[in-house]
Amino acid sequence: MTDTAMTDIYTRRESEARSYCRSFPVTFKWAKNATLRDDEGREYTDFLAGCSSLNYGHNDDDMKAALLDHVSSDGLAHGLDMHTGVKARFLEAFEKIILEPRDMDYKFMFTGPTGTNAVEAAMKLARKTTGRETIVAFTNGFHGMTMGALAATGNAGKRAGGGMALSGVVRMPYEGAMDGVDSLALIREMLANPSSGIDAPAAFLIEPVQGEGGLNAASADFLRGLQELAREHGALVIMDDIQSGIGRTGPFFSFEGMGIQPDLIPLAKSLSGMGLPFAGLLIRPDLDVWKPAEHNGTFRGNNHAFVTARVALEKFWQDDAFQKQTEAKAAFLTERLQRIADMIPGASLKGRGMMQGVDVGCGEMAAAICATCFQHGLIIETSGAHDEVVKVLAPLTIPQDQFAKGLDVLEAAAQVHAPANKIAAE
Amino acid sequence: MTDTAMTDIYTRRESEARSYCRSFPVTFKWAKNATLRDDEGREYTDFLAGCSSLNYGHNDDDMKAALLDHVSSDGLAHGLDMHTGVKARFLEAFEKIILEPRDMDYKFMFTGPTGTNAVEAAMKLARKTTGRETIVAFTNGFHGMTMGALAATGNAGKRAGGGMALSGVVRMPYEGAMDGVDSLALIREMLANPSSGIDAPAAFLIEPVQGEGGLNAASADFLRGLQELAREHGALVIMDDIQSGIGRTGPFFSFEGMGIQPDLIPLAKSLSGMGLPFAGLLIRPDLDVWKPAEHNGTFRGNNHAFVTARVALEKFWQDDAFQKQTEAKAAFLTERLQRIADMIPGASLKGRGMMQGVDVGCGEMAAAICATCFQHGLIIETSGAHDEVVKVLAPLTIPQDQFAKGLDVLEAAAQVHAPANKIAAE
Amino acid sequence: MTDTAMTDIYTRRESEARSYCRSFPVTFKWAKNATLRDDEGREYTDFLAGCSSLNYGHNDDDMKAALLDHVSSDGLAHGLDMHTGVKARFLEAFEKIILEPRDMDYKFMFTGPTGTNAVEAAMKLARKTTGRETIVAFTNGFHGMTMGALAATGNAGKRAGGGMALSGVVRMPYEGAMDGVDSLALIREMLANPSSGIDAPAAFLIEPVQGEGGLNAASADFLRGLQELAREHGALVIMDDIQSGIGRTGPFFSFEGMGIQPDLIPLAKSLSGMGLPFAGLLIRPDLDVWKPAEHNGTFRGNNHAFVTARVALEKFWQDDAFQKQTEAKAAFLTERLQRIADMIPGASLKGRGMMQGVDVGCGEMAAAICATCFQHGLIIETSGAHDEVVKVLAPLTIPQDQFAKGLDVLEAAAQVHAPANKIAAE
Amino acid sequence: MTDTAMTDIYTRRESEARSYCRSFPVTFKWAKNATLRDDEGREYTDFLAGCSSLNYGHNDDDMKAALLDHVSSDGLAHGLDMHTGVKARFLEAFEKIILEPRDMDYKFMFTGPTGTNAVEAAMKLARKTTGRETIVAFTNGFHGMTMGALAATGNAGKRAGGGMALSGVVRMPYEGAMDGVDSLALIREMLANPSSGIDAPAAFLIEPVQGEGGLNAASADFLRGLQELAREHGALVIMDDIQSGIGRTGPFFSFEGMGIQPDLIPLAKSLSGMGLPFAGLLIRPDLDVWKPAEHNGTFRGNNHAFVTARVALEKFWQDDAFQKQTEAKAAFLTERLQRIADMIPGASLKGRGMMQGVDVGCGEMAAAICATCFQHGLIIETSGAHDEVVKVLAPLTIPQDQFAKGLDVLEAAAQVHAPANKIAAE
Repeated sequence: MTDTAMTDIYTRRESEARSYCRSFPVTFKWAKNATLRDDEGREYTDFLAGCSSLNYGHNDDDMKAALLDHVSSDGLAHGLDMHTGVKARFLEAFEKIILEPRDMDYKFMFTGPTGTNAVEAAMKLARKTTGRETIVAFTNGFHGMTMGALAATGNAGKRAGGGMALSGVVRMPYEGAMDGVDSLALIREMLANPSSGIDAPAAFLIEPVQGEGGLNAASADFLRGLQELAREHGALVIMDDIQSGIGRTGPFFSFEGMGIQPDLIPLAKSLSGMGLPFAGLLIRPDLDVWKPAEHNGTFRGNNHAFVTARVALEKFWQDDAFQKQTEAKAAFLTERLQRIADMIPGASLKGRGMMQGVDVGCGEMAAAICATCFQHGLIIETSGAHDEVVKVLAPLTIPQDQFAKGLDVLEAAAQVHAPANKIAAE
Repeated sequence: MTDTAMTDIYTRRESEARSYCRSFPVTFKWAKNATLRDDEGREYTDFLAGCSSLNYGHNDDDMKAALLDHVSSDGLAHGLDMHTGVKARFLEAFEKIILEPRDMDYKFMFTGPTGTNAVEAAMKLARKTTGRETIVAFTNGFHGMTMGALAATGNAGKRAGGGMALSGVVRMPYEGAMDGVDSLALIREMLANPSSGIDAPAAFLIEPVQGEGGLNAASADFLRGLQELAREHGALVIMDDIQSGIGRTGPFFSFEGMGIQPDLIPLAKSLSGMGLPFAGLLIRPDLDVWKPAEHNGTFRGNNHAFVTARVALEKFWQDDAFQKQTEAKAAFLTERLQRIADMIPGASLKGRGMMQGVDVGCGEMAAAICATCFQHGLIIETSGAHDEVVKVLAPLTIPQDQFAKGLDVLEAAAQVHAPANKIAAE
Repeated sequence: MTDTAMTDIYTRRESEARSYCRSFPVTFKWAKNATLRDDEGREYTDFLAGCSSLNYGHNDDDMKAALLDHVSSDGLAHGLDMHTGVKARFLEAFEKIILEPRDMDYKFMFTGPTGTNAVEAAMKLARKTTGRETIVAFTNGFHGMTMGALAATGNAGKRAGGGMALSGVVRMPYEGAMDGVDSLALIREMLANPSSGIDAPAAFLIEPVQGEGGLNAASADFLRGLQELAREHGALVIMDDIQSGIGRTGPFFSFEGMGIQPDLIPLAKSLSGMGLPFAGLLIRPDLDVWKPAEHNGTFRGNNHAFVTARVALEKFWQDDAFQKQTEAKAAFLTERLQRIADMIPGASLKGRGMMQGVDVGCGEMAAAICATCFQHGLIIETSGAHDEVVKVLAPLTIPQDQFAKGLDVLEAAAQVHAPANKIAAE
Repeated sequence: MTDTAMTDIYTRRESEARSYCRSFPVTFKWAKNATLRDDEGREYTDFLAGCSSLNYGHNDDDMKAALLDHVSSDGLAHGLDMHTGVKARFLEAFEKIILEPRDMDYKFMFTGPTGTNAVEAAMKLARKTTGRETIVAFTNGFHGMTMGALAATGNAGKRAGGGMALSGVVRMPYEGAMDGVDSLALIREMLANPSSGIDAPAAFLIEPVQGEGGLNAASADFLRGLQELAREHGALVIMDDIQSGIGRTGPFFSFEGMGIQPDLIPLAKSLSGMGLPFAGLLIRPDLDVWKPAEHNGTFRGNNHAFVTARVALEKFWQDDAFQKQTEAKAAFLTERLQRIADMIPGASLKGRGMMQGVDVGCGEMAAAICATCFQHGLIIETSGAHDEVVKVLAPLTIPQDQFAKGLDVLEAAAQVHAPANKIAAE
């Protein structure tokens, strides 16, 4: 039986919750950096990158070598939260390579290895330390699928999956989300008014760039204003850098250089470097009041991930070369996407860094563009409240020519579906 | 710097939430089956087994070989929920080796790779399909740390971590939890009385054996009674087999042979076979009404885990040899633990299969016994509402002589701390 | 148009929520003590007494005179919570006649004039003062229809009216509610077990006799045990004496002589003496931490009610004569109801004092008995989870011969519907 | 002992929740129309009118006569929800005098006699009929003190009284509440965005004029826009006319002539005409799906209130004379208040009809003005999030010269405390 024949097993046995496989109905077998190969030998360029979990591409040689070495020598795979050499080395590297140069002082909490778990830990800790319940989350925010994080997630379809009312969260418009509304001013007024009905918040929970919500990027002014407001009202700032962090926008954290010192920073996705499950929460030290095991999780000690995560830090973050490369690619991306946006009436550029896309105005067109791309060997997806944004999340390590060729495919697909051409073609 | 010196990094940088490392303050470096070795070369026998995540021991040679092969050949590590050959082969194996021989018909949902995520998916689906909110959970139940699952978790310390009230769950006594109370009869009466104030439940959420709650094992009669009650009241049965499943009590599922057909079965811990993060939810096919991505998760496609999980199924579950071996070991364990229980006034045997322990009556004594064990190279932990149960969770694959020696250490430690000897010693 | 003809207006304009008028489809025009007269001149004996709001009967001459005098002289009707002479005189009388002789020290809070409002105030204050959310309420409890009190109400139909999940309440079996279960022991065990999943409660909320729930009367031992448990766990006792208080069981409070000192006592129904809207909450002085208007209500200063309430206290509670009379009537009632219960296989006596009834085993028979009573000029209703209890709530002031005649009617009706006779009749 | 001496009883026995009596520390004894007299014979003009519960003034002679007649003749005082002649006559009058001429078709639900109870009934019914939980309420809204209504109330102090999180309500800015924000546009965008995190609402709950919230008056455009939005999204409109209704702004309902057809209208305060406890909910007939007693309340049959309420309808609403009078007084009030506002830098006029006031910019000044008024025999209070609005709520029936004199007192008090004069005086 070939792999292809086996896809039937999915219909028979995999839950209807499956999704990406519906857009890309082939069986993948091999992956390296930005290239995927299916079981029939066809190759694809990956502009999805595990939704930003593969910022360093697939199967980076150094991470792979370190992992093979660890497994070969019977290093621990699963260690609960017991001390292991590879865990210590990861923490050391994180301290020296990430925290110290940025003058950041945080404790690292190893949560269950999912982004939603890190967000839940942050929400719990914010409520526990402030004695308040309300978390202010934002329109189009995406924070996870478990009940605490889901309450903070904006998407109606996801929320409906909860099957019951979701509580503890108050919603405010993200920067620019509502026409003619200065979101920060609105939030400030709502909190200043003792009869507004908005209870004093435990925290603001915000993504610096909203990945699932449509590549909305908050400005430094907005984030700084929010931070000031939080401090004024005794609330914490939880900066969810799960999708936007680990180099995606250029620097390691997406909010670097903005004058932001978040109280809690959930991380996941590209944290392990190689796509292995790994999540964590950075905690301002004085807020680290957890009792032992007060929040725990069986897989919080994924030692394979510690190995690859350390290699990723050592390889990419010892100096600013990688950040500079990313910024150069991002500038190229902006230029190319602007050309595409210009092609489609009403379209606009969204996002920041290597997390950009084109809002084409409606989900149908965006879906059509992505489908055409896939026919031409490009894996790319949409985001946004109406799935109206074609989103480029290529590995940061993608070779420049492959990146350019991928964008050629995208541009061609956009051309096919741009309204003018559609009319001409009909 | 030696690994040992690096333990300091934990104090400096790891969150206070860390726990097991406090009981076992060494740095582990190497692990094979039931043996752990620290960075100074000392060896330990593992009676904790990643809290039942390492039912097949550490670094099983066949799983290891398959994983090395997959990684070496640049197989996908992270695949979101896209089709991959190794995923298909896992599903095929699960269907042929697990489902079909047991005449079980379920859809497999790949959730975020934590037990709590599988439980949340189950709770969401139960509420969504029944249109009801209330989940009946049980005293001493443990289901996870995210807000939905935490609401169903009994432990007061864990619950307090939530920082806000937990809703949607009604609590009933587990079988035998309350002296002189027939739990099933109580539940039946509560549900039969339209003025009891207990709303019609969406589901019962129960562990066949409560791992964290003190190794309480429900009888077949109790579980069957619950299932009947559920059907009578239009509720589902969610059988949380995360800790008790995957062979821990003998058969693959802990409830086999009891006449139980759960509607939803969350699985995790030993599912990957090698301790890699992996969780899933088995869904009665007609309940699989999820919309695509209605519950999703970035790491739901941990392909490394698919590889090792398949090997585990093929190696251990093609016939009943492994189950028989486990049952033989369990019988031996019962005998040895009974001897220990007999030593301590008021002590009693708890649990079932290779998930047994001794309730020594108080947490202080249990902790002292475990500490003494560790001094003699045995890693073992407690469970129960007062941490009063010394819990043996050895790998099922532990060699018989190592198992016996570990139990010798445990018996000796119990002897040291048994009240009579303590009095004699004072 | 006659009054009778006008009943049509109800169908046309009154909400379907109306209820008692469906059982007693006549138009009442006049009422005195235990007698009601309809607009066609037919007289009825009142064994419902406004669900215990008319413990002193309809239109007591002294209350009536005082009210007429107050209204005639343009005394304030509505005073918000401003000081008025009649309010002061009510408080003085309550202090001297009720509190001081019983050695009770409480503050009186004038809540909105509904029982549910007094209960809500109690629940709010218990949560506020303890910093805890969970209120333990009991099976078959009835505490009101607003969302806070409704959460504590057991009846499934009433709960369903809320249209959303009701939170903040944990349910325990009332004394004797579950066959073979020692409710107090169960509660004690649940609270003692730190992993039971029952959070530390703010309060126990209990009716000494459950009026709507089927005339279940708690023993002194049970209530005292609950009080001890509450103190041990830092919880308050809220004794809802709305239906059972103000003399209904004999003494002014239904729990007198039981060694109970509740922390909070909601009162309503017969508080005004004449059936006028009036409710209040007795608060243990050190718990009276309300800020001005923190809980308020427009009609909390119903001065007409203050006038009649004061007269009621002065007329009936200056000595123990009234209590003795009630006890004598209650003894007579017990005797007569026992005769009825003996007539019906499986029937049993329920309740205490002048709050007794017969559980006839099913709602249909109870309804049939009440309907037959009404045909013979007796107004009487059912209660209980299945409406299976025929409940006698006559005014305490009912003349002995009228009481006896009413019971004759009831006995005759029971005879008609007793199974043996039904069989004979068929 | 004189009444005055008795005020001590309040300190001793009345809960600290008492409020208005702190501003007006005298004992009232007699009241007629807009005049109150204390027990020392001093007279006061009432610009508070029971917070709009005494729109027809104190002890209207016709209502008083009808009530005396009813009581004298032993008409029922308390009737649960049984039919009585006076209830039928009230409903008949309400139908003929209020509903029919306005072409309004509603069922009348007699709720427990508090505004909060009518609001809770409305919220429950909205959730029950739509199957949705979220009620959209507004900044500065005030709807009551029981948990359901309190969730919709904006005031932080009141909310804190709940002692637990309040759920089921989402907050939006009232018209004009936030500088530079078009509230209606904001709400429209929030509801249109499927990822906004605002769940589809069961209802909008709004006061046409916010009494407690600072006399904010919504425009017809805003209310109509809201109604359109509600219909578009399958939500109901609950128009809380408790304080603004029954003639307070001129017409019987405050929203008359605005093109509004609310689905549910809670009424209370001046409904009985004489300040007696009485509340009700008007229900669009097809939404009247209550089961019998699904929402009930012991005092929902306050027959005394039915008597006076009917007289009020017959006396004041048979033609438009009363409305015209009110509008004339309101015009006079506007003129006088504008003069006061002009005196105080930054002050502005608030409200509509006979529900107007002056926002003097800060709570301290407003309190000082009210205190000075009281010294000169005028009872007047503040409202607003910061108690910054001096609010005139005179009886609609106040004689013109008394009204003018009261406003003279207010103007003089404002002059005393106006900043310029304060500076001059210092």
